[in-house]
Amino acid sequence: METTARKSLDGLFNGRGVAIMGASAKKGKPGHSIVENLRAAGFTGNVYPVNAASESILGFQCYRSLEKITGRIDLVVMVLPADDCVEAARAIARRKDGKGDISAAVVVSAGFSELGTDQGRSREKALLDVLVPRGIRVVGPNCLGVMDTYSGVNTNFDIGAYRRGGLSIITQSGAFAVSYLKWAEPGRLVGLSKFVSLGNMSDVNVVELLGYLADDDRTSVIALYLEGTRQGRALVETAAHVSRKKPIVALKAGKTRIGSVAAASHTGSLAGRFEMYQGVFRQAGVVLAESVIEFYYTAAAFAKMPLPRGNSICVLTVLGGPGTLCVDELVSSGAVRLARLSEKTKSELRAILIPAANIGKPEGFIDTTPSFTEAQHREVLKIVLGDPAVSGVIYLTTPPLFMDEDALAENIIAAYESFAPEERKPLLSVIGFGSSVPRLRNRMEEAGMPTIEYPDIAAKVMINMVRYSRYKSRFDEH
Amino acid sequence: METTARKSLDGLFNGRGVAIMGASAKKGKPGHSIVENLRAAGFTGNVYPVNAASESILGFQCYRSLEKITGRIDLVVMVLPADDCVEAARAIARRKDGKGDISAAVVVSAGFSELGTDQGRSREKALLDVLVPRGIRVVGPNCLGVMDTYSGVNTNFDIGAYRRGGLSIITQSGAFAVSYLKWAEPGRLVGLSKFVSLGNMSDVNVVELLGYLADDDRTSVIALYLEGTRQGRALVETAAHVSRKKPIVALKAGKTRIGSVAAASHTGSLAGRFEMYQGVFRQAGVVLAESVIEFYYTAAAFAKMPLPRGNSICVLTVLGGPGTLCVDELVSSGAVRLARLSEKTKSELRAILIPAANIGKPEGFIDTTPSFTEAQHREVLKIVLGDPAVSGVIYLTTPPLFMDEDALAENIIAAYESFAPEERKPLLSVIGFGSSVPRLRNRMEEAGMPTIEYPDIAAKVMINMVRYSRYKSRFDEH
Repeated sequence: METTARKSLDGLFNGRGVAIMGASAKKGKPGHSIVENLRAAGFTGNVYPVNAASESILGFQCYRSLEKITGRIDLVVMVLPADDCVEAARAIARRKDGKGDISAAVVVSAGFSELGTDQGRSREKALLDVLVPRGIRVVGPNCLGVMDTYSGVNTNFDIGAYRRGGLSIITQSGAFAVSYLKWAEPGRLVGLSKFVSLGNMSDVNVVELLGYLADDDRTSVIALYLEGTRQGRALVETAAHVSRKKPIVALKAGKTRIGSVAAASHTGSLAGRFEMYQGVFRQAGVVLAESVIEFYYTAAAFAKMPLPRGNSICVLTVLGGPGTLCVDELVSSGAVRLARLSEKTKSELRAILIPAANIGKPEGFIDTTPSFTEAQHREVLKIVLGDPAVSGVIYLTTPPLFMDEDALAENIIAAYESFAPEERKPLLSVIGFGSSVPRLRNRMEEAGMPTIEYPDIAAKVMINMVRYSRYKSRFDEH
Repeated sequence: METTARKSLDGLFNGRGVAIMGASAKKGKPGHSIVENLRAAGFTGNVYPVNAASESILGFQCYRSLEKITGRIDLVVMVLPADDCVEAARAIARRKDGKGDISAAVVVSAGFSELGTDQGRSREKALLDVLVPRGIRVVGPNCLGVMDTYSGVNTNFDIGAYRRGGLSIITQSGAFAVSYLKWAEPGRLVGLSKFVSLGNMSDVNVVELLGYLADDDRTSVIALYLEGTRQGRALVETAAHVSRKKPIVALKAGKTRIGSVAAASHTGSLAGRFEMYQGVFRQAGVVLAESVIEFYYTAAAFAKMPLPRGNSICVLTVLGGPGTLCVDELVSSGAVRLARLSEKTKSELRAILIPAANIGKPEGFIDTTPSFTEAQHREVLKIVLGDPAVSGVIYLTTPPLFMDEDALAENIIAAYESFAPEERKPLLSVIGFGSSVPRLRNRMEEAGMPTIEYPDIAAKVMINMVRYSRYKSRFDEH
């Protein structure tokens, strides 16, 4: 990626002075929540609410206009009625022409090309015509803008603080990405690095953001919600390049003609033919999820677990039926095979498990039955993870009667951490009881171990990891 | 169904005297938990723990043997080492021959035909040879047995009390069904009527249970987890008959050859060819889910919502992206079309919603944008549900900034309940924020309104309801 392009996006994520045009003193208004959430996100730079009617908002001094702000401004957030946005852009332009300090604008306001009207389109064009030629990058309009959990920059009126992690999100639907983050929050399923809600994507676009995040050390996986783009070829080329470094997990909306109409009414984007996307994306190494839940858990797993170094998966289960469902899903993909456990592994397992346990029928499947202790869970898991024939493990467990959730979590974590980081394999744990065992799940997630409620979804996630790993390995240096 | 067969199963669900052979005074043992859970389930009949070493267990007087019990026994639960089960069966037989009072036995113990050994198979045969000819029906072995939330009968060592509802479960994996119930519990997603974990299905089987539950007024939907059966033809015929009265939602394990091996090792059942099942099940009106989560939410929705009286669905959304994903999934099925809203509906909506709202692009899709009040949510929902062209609604919502979760829930419920019960249509609500808005979800679920985190799963559930309704309508009297 060109240095200038990268630099121009730096202002979005790393600005130290943020002005909010349309900041409001009234709780519940987006113009209030943005100020509140910027503070909640731990932003330590300067916050400049622009509001002629208030003295201060949440302790930040208000300014009647942009020109009254004496400090340096990097980023301007516009949360104004659509009718006022072009005039606001002119104010930004005047300041840029004078002080030269604004590098980016997030236009939260809606009422532009997504309306499908001439007025909406011409308003959007007017906005860009004022800002872009001056080197001011525009995110939106009709968006939630950016979040960076490390710098604390946050223009999102829905989410304030969020736990840090390696996942960055690029989305053409703010609501979709916010739903993901809120869904994941109680279970601590995801840690966030950067978030960009693109809205109408009038200037800053998917392609350059992918390039930017590929070079971002704090991003280990990119989750992409895509409705459509006019940059099809550039997107695929960039995606193929980025996928050599880190995974892109994508969900494509507008698969059907009728769905495309809904997408167009939403962000004014052209959905394109889904079949086209599907084929070329997969060739480009992009992990294309088939459902929302597969997208959620796949992105989370990539952020937490190492890649498998092969396609031989072991299914280790305490629960017969769910184990069977997991095996079904795994092998039906064709991308994964069940691991051929070594004789050493099998005899070590036999020494621990009860005679009724099933070791290797079918090959690579172990049903321990629930009759064993926390410490035996640890031993069994260590043996299985340590078998060189195993590239990854799906572990279906549940706290048996009166087994302590915390003790079980600690033993699972201890088994995993008994391996040196470079020897670790992906371990996906199916906790079928879901949020009825919150301590088990929370403790495991905090230790970086993905927990999934559904055995078949865990299988899909593992298949995605195996497929991506195979793509990436073609480009790794040897 | 024959009266004698039905009567013989009555003893399972409605027994008033339950003896537990293998009852234990030691907390954590299954033989203890069964006594505990029977009490927790509110069973008001007589509980007879058989235990020679203890005076009493959890306040229930212990008996040295079955013959020492003077009161009437309907059901015996065996939770003994496998080696002791045949001898225990003989004790049951002696009592039956003398007093004639035992009508059913639940054999929780494992160590029978599922082992795949001659010893296991002959032990199972010996058990049946003693009991079945005497008219004692056997559930199991290798199972969790039965629960009935109305009678309080409960032989499940994993679950005690559970909220009542119209869902009954027949399962060849106890762990699978327990996972479902525990998964659903914190969100109050499901209410249970009857539960039967069949284990090795040596005597009481899927076919007769389907017939029994078809006639059970407290069962409105049957959820079936199936690994395999030798009664293929009878199963399909019975399912087709039962489906004329109430829905059967099924999940089939052992879809792949390798998965079948796992299933066989688990309950000794023959998985059969999945393609065969799929085609004939669908023809028999059975709702065959393709994933665990689809199974979970479909069964819950049938238990809570009326059937659609057509296939015209309206997608009403506050959230653009998730709304698009929902539309994609709905229309790609071919079974559902988006509803043609009347002009009256459209003009009424226009009067309430902001100009930027999308009413009918595509037809049947309404994106309100998040900018409206709780009361407006209620009005919009009433208008859409009241349109005669609409057979059902998927409603994607979320509490906007500082909107009160409870107030939103009350308004949604009020809109729904403004219609007389016979005029109600299925309403599936997508709460994308999941358990981060527990009050909203819990309140809605308590009022009988299904909430689903994922827009595409909600679409699949609606498709299942539409398809089943079409099947059933062919047999309804006019």
